[in-house]
Amino acid sequence: LVLYWLDLFGVAVFAVTGSLAARRKQLDLFGVLVIALVTALGGGTLRDMLLGRSPVFWVQDSSVIVIASVAALLTVVAARWNLLPARPLLLADALGLAVFSVLGTQTALESDVNALAAIIMGVMTGVAGGIIRDLLTGEIPLILQREIYATAALCGSVALIVAIELQLPAGFAELLGVTVTLVLRLAAIWRGWRLPQFT
Amino acid sequence: LVLYWLDLFGVAVFAVTGSLAARRKQLDLFGVLVIALVTALGGGTLRDMLLGRSPVFWVQDSSVIVIASVAALLTVVAARWNLLPARPLLLADALGLAVFSVLGTQTALESDVNALAAIIMGVMTGVAGGIIRDLLTGEIPLILQREIYATAALCGSVALIVAIELQLPAGFAELLGVTVTLVLRLAAIWRGWRLPQFT
Amino acid sequence: LVLYWLDLFGVAVFAVTGSLAARRKQLDLFGVLVIALVTALGGGTLRDMLLGRSPVFWVQDSSVIVIASVAALLTVVAARWNLLPARPLLLADALGLAVFSVLGTQTALESDVNALAAIIMGVMTGVAGGIIRDLLTGEIPLILQREIYATAALCGSVALIVAIELQLPAGFAELLGVTVTLVLRLAAIWRGWRLPQFT
Repeated sequence: LVLYWLDLFGVAVFAVTGSLAARRKQLDLFGVLVIALVTALGGGTLRDMLLGRSPVFWVQDSSVIVIASVAALLTVVAARWNLLPARPLLLADALGLAVFSVLGTQTALESDVNALAAIIMGVMTGVAGGIIRDLLTGEIPLILQREIYATAALCGSVALIVAIELQLPAGFAELLGVTVTLVLRLAAIWRGWRLPQFT
Repeated sequence: LVLYWLDLFGVAVFAVTGSLAARRKQLDLFGVLVIALVTALGGGTLRDMLLGRSPVFWVQDSSVIVIASVAALLTVVAARWNLLPARPLLLADALGLAVFSVLGTQTALESDVNALAAIIMGVMTGVAGGIIRDLLTGEIPLILQREIYATAALCGSVALIVAIELQLPAGFAELLGVTVTLVLRLAAIWRGWRLPQFT
Repeated sequence: LVLYWLDLFGVAVFAVTGSLAARRKQLDLFGVLVIALVTALGGGTLRDMLLGRSPVFWVQDSSVIVIASVAALLTVVAARWNLLPARPLLLADALGLAVFSVLGTQTALESDVNALAAIIMGVMTGVAGGIIRDLLTGEIPLILQREIYATAALCGSVALIVAIELQLPAGFAELLGVTVTLVLRLAAIWRGWRLPQFT
């Protein structure tokens, strides 16, 4: 249940990061809204399509559309007055990533997929929205570059599945998955941890 | 029924704009065909996948594939002889956008989705083909930039849904939706109307 | 049955080409893995989603995920020691393209789609992975440019369908489809065959 609220929080945060990316590209109001929605809902949408869960989640429950749209509009106002400090936003984004990955993995497991595919679905739920955002704004997807971002989601998803396999309580497994992703991502932000490049 | 013919008209027009974009990028004949098909069928395809309507529409009825291909090939010939004036093409494109948006919204409503999702599906049917075209040809999607394009589709889709909610006759509701989009788009072209940018 | 092994071979080869593309863009290890998986599995994934075959193939059988991942990691090692000569890789890629296109067409036919859509599905299975790879690494999709690549897949797919319509034995039809694509692609590589550009 806590996860449900955290999920809506993640939707709002991702919509904010999407709006800011659209801002940097000088898109108009509608473009901002589109990028915000795509960033916030893209990962879960791709997951649902791959799993054959149709219609996708935001068609069944429109509240996430409303939340993402409101977050985008508030961002437009807040950004004009410089009310969006970068640091807290990075932390909120890390939490959104952690929650999305755990929920994505769980959703996949509910559809009876193999563990490997469930991990991919989890990571995808966390990062695909940002990838589509980067494509639409003409950037090479940042998360594929050097920072530990998707890797953090991967570790959290693996931790969740291991905990479930060990038959730990569901609530504990979720908490573990979220924590692993969050800690790794924060370490990457504060300590500058990086994966080796392929040279 | 008129809408059915207008739909095929829209497919042909979008195939033409796709071919011209491919031409500017100096793609070969096959590339032109791919971009034309993607532009003409991409929006409806994405809508069908999101709604879980499978297989997608052009798998069930191949006539749209034929129409888009023929339109692409004719464009190759016509463009070489400068037979494609830009102005009428813009008008035809506006009509295609209007028809696609109304049909997309209707298709979504038939699948019993909420009104908000139906509007998104309508806009997506109208504009996603063009967005994929821009991605494949290495452009930042134009419609997310300054002109009123997707916004016109949005207003037409909203008008359609309001008219249906008010229980107006279906034919009138469709006509209203198409007209709203068309008028807004033409105003944007002729009057240079724009949405405020996010600065 | 031979086709099944060739399919796994194709997955590995496409993963290698994906890894090399990621290397050129200096992505980190995780980015390499993502691009490799997308290149190897993207075409079949898109086909399955369009056909409404859900969940998609790699969710049902995770062996392709393992093969693509291992191929990507081996590529990282081999590329550092310059163990990947370009020529043999081009040939292997041509074989992968041929096999994917034939299998994609067959999969579509099993789902009772019309011949035109089956051809599109076949070509898409062969080339969509490479297109997504190019999008994610910030390139204009190469296959839409001048070389005969997708066109070879198209001809192989058409040959397969004609052979099936003529009620030739299934094994012969498959062999024909693979051969047509392979020969055309190799001719393009060695002879420099090209399609006319659209000027």
